[in-house]
Amino acid sequence: MTTIENPNKKDWSTILKRPTQTVDDIESTVNQVFNDVKLYGDEAIEKYTLKFDNVVLESLLVSKTEIEKASIKVSEDLKQAIQTAKLNIDKFHRAQKTDRVEVETIKGVICWQEKRPIEKIGLYIPGGTAPLFSTVLMLAIPAQIAGCKEIVLCSPPNKEGKIANEILYTAQLCGVTKIIKVGGIQVIAGLTFGTATIPQVYKIFGPGNQFVTVAKQLATKYGVAIDMPAGPSELLVIADDSANAAYVASDLLSQAEHGTDSQVILVSTSKSLIANVSKEIDNQLNELPRKEIAQKSIANSKLIFVESDKIALELINEYAPEHFIICSKNEELYIKGIVNAGSVFIGNYTPESAGDYASGTNHTLPTNGFCKAYSGVNLDSFTKSITFQKISKEGLQNIGNAIELMAEAEGLQAHKNAVSMRLKDIKQK
Amino acid sequence: MTTIENPNKKDWSTILKRPTQTVDDIESTVNQVFNDVKLYGDEAIEKYTLKFDNVVLESLLVSKTEIEKASIKVSEDLKQAIQTAKLNIDKFHRAQKTDRVEVETIKGVICWQEKRPIEKIGLYIPGGTAPLFSTVLMLAIPAQIAGCKEIVLCSPPNKEGKIANEILYTAQLCGVTKIIKVGGIQVIAGLTFGTATIPQVYKIFGPGNQFVTVAKQLATKYGVAIDMPAGPSELLVIADDSANAAYVASDLLSQAEHGTDSQVILVSTSKSLIANVSKEIDNQLNELPRKEIAQKSIANSKLIFVESDKIALELINEYAPEHFIICSKNEELYIKGIVNAGSVFIGNYTPESAGDYASGTNHTLPTNGFCKAYSGVNLDSFTKSITFQKISKEGLQNIGNAIELMAEAEGLQAHKNAVSMRLKDIKQK
Repeated sequence: MTTIENPNKKDWSTILKRPTQTVDDIESTVNQVFNDVKLYGDEAIEKYTLKFDNVVLESLLVSKTEIEKASIKVSEDLKQAIQTAKLNIDKFHRAQKTDRVEVETIKGVICWQEKRPIEKIGLYIPGGTAPLFSTVLMLAIPAQIAGCKEIVLCSPPNKEGKIANEILYTAQLCGVTKIIKVGGIQVIAGLTFGTATIPQVYKIFGPGNQFVTVAKQLATKYGVAIDMPAGPSELLVIADDSANAAYVASDLLSQAEHGTDSQVILVSTSKSLIANVSKEIDNQLNELPRKEIAQKSIANSKLIFVESDKIALELINEYAPEHFIICSKNEELYIKGIVNAGSVFIGNYTPESAGDYASGTNHTLPTNGFCKAYSGVNLDSFTKSITFQKISKEGLQNIGNAIELMAEAEGLQAHKNAVSMRLKDIKQK
Repeated sequence: MTTIENPNKKDWSTILKRPTQTVDDIESTVNQVFNDVKLYGDEAIEKYTLKFDNVVLESLLVSKTEIEKASIKVSEDLKQAIQTAKLNIDKFHRAQKTDRVEVETIKGVICWQEKRPIEKIGLYIPGGTAPLFSTVLMLAIPAQIAGCKEIVLCSPPNKEGKIANEILYTAQLCGVTKIIKVGGIQVIAGLTFGTATIPQVYKIFGPGNQFVTVAKQLATKYGVAIDMPAGPSELLVIADDSANAAYVASDLLSQAEHGTDSQVILVSTSKSLIANVSKEIDNQLNELPRKEIAQKSIANSKLIFVESDKIALELINEYAPEHFIICSKNEELYIKGIVNAGSVFIGNYTPESAGDYASGTNHTLPTNGFCKAYSGVNLDSFTKSITFQKISKEGLQNIGNAIELMAEAEGLQAHKNAVSMRLKDIKQK
């Protein structure tokens, strides 16, 4: 843990630098898999599942029976918890529905905007040591609200060729029935080109390791949209003397346990709080089962003292954290002033893990400073907006001359003609 | 022009295939320019402007005096037309503002979503034979409404080292004052990395040729967002006997004059309309100054007869046109049923050129079938949504247990601790 006091503004970017990732070396692997899946479909999918996951699958699709059996194995307590989370996530995302926006821009010219669902989507749920069934909630619930027709969920199989019970239970709870037991580069390629078993989709959602991230980036080159570019998870806390040092430490640790490349930062206007949080981290760290991981990312973390909330806000907007916790007497200043953040948590009783699981907000968020331009996943991520217009004879008379002049000035005579011909007829009638 | 009757559904994808583009061969050039601009900044910008545009620039920035002089040279008529268009575009995009969405998902848990502007953006306006000042309106107006702080407009210089008067006039009318006289790959690289003269931005908007398109794609690899992938322009018209063949022909030609790779398609339930439109195209084509271009893209165009509106709708949703004109007795069926389109034009007096210039809708739209997943440019394109949450002690008691159970099941003990520690304190007080 490094403590830094009053850093010079010109050093901010160095201090706030994220752990670097290089992707160039895995691009050739990703290209190879894409080419193979494009040419050989399911055969290539199976080949790479054997190679990367060390599994031979009987079927790429999860059967109804498998889903039913999995659901039975999930404890009633956990089912209740998942259902509570589902209710809140559903409520918050349903509230994001927007009405059609209609304007008569000038008499006789009616323009409107409507959102329509993206018809075919793929949801990627990582496998690995922990079954991230919470991500199923975060992606499948808004997809259902938006009205996406074909929702394909993909997740890598474990060594027994299975997907975790919790993931299967949550998927069926959210109405997702097409579940593919394939992960990694090969399934992103499958969703991009389509195979006999894996449907081709228009947009791919979900987190993943570096291979999945590069594969999603390559998918965009083939015209498939993605939710956002991904990077290691991160948290920045602003806290002053009104904060509880133990709580702040627990939040920093909850982010640190994600992976050794996670980044946690504390910014504070109080030197004593920084000292207390530092002590609390040492105390709490020892109790954690994922201690080794948390220790490594904590080692890279920064505790930054600044003189004022104004400077703090500026520094935070430059860093653009994925998760941003505010425990400050001046919380309003931060709420109003934050421009670059993925999701914001306010007050001593709002731990970041609330948003990870059950408060209702989405946890699929832009990392790596991407929140400067990208939103986290929300209802709109599953729709696209279409504009409509209907112009009456009177309307065309109102704007026709402007169109003619502008089209002519841009050297597009046929654009002008389309209007002139109609205006001529209207005049003659 | 090829006329096709009742095509078999399995042949749709072949019939509707767009002119193919290969980009692999220009990727190495784009990579080279990016590397040079990253290393050498403005020096590389100047080098490539000399190489690609054959111009030595005194300054990369357009001066205040240049803008003033340019404005004087634009005719009063054209200024009036541009101002009419600006009013309508402003009205339609301003109506797209959304309020904060706030929900108490469960007692004591308040979640909300707010949109904040993307602070730094770049707008690319192509140069070439015609000055596309209308695109300045389409990008700068919503950027201003959204509240973007730094708006940088870039456009390639002509042989005299200048940007067209109309572009400069429109830019200052829309409040854009930072105008860079650089185009092509080199300016996209400049906006990506920043140079002494060109600011680094978070998102790049605007159309361009293949080089610009590939450069924008590469920019996303460096974390810069883009509006959408681009391709040649396209129009699909559905028309029946209620349509006016001359008008339909004029609309198809207005799209065809954009470039030899533009694609225009007529789908109709009336064989006589198809015959009449075909005749009208031949008549009108001869009068066009851009006849040679229009002729080539018309040669690739398709006139498709289908038996019913139902089949037509299905075919249109599969094609996913950028521009979609409806001239049909059954217009409601198409308005309700269209899922994949960029912008929709309804009725005999709504030519596509209205939306290109002055009705109020945006003309920066997804081509190449990308409207299956992407929206056209709209107000939201210049913002990102951030979620906020504030949880009271009561709120944490309501969802705390669910979080604990889910975190534990995902193997994330520190996530659980952050809640348990707080719940324990609340109970004791």
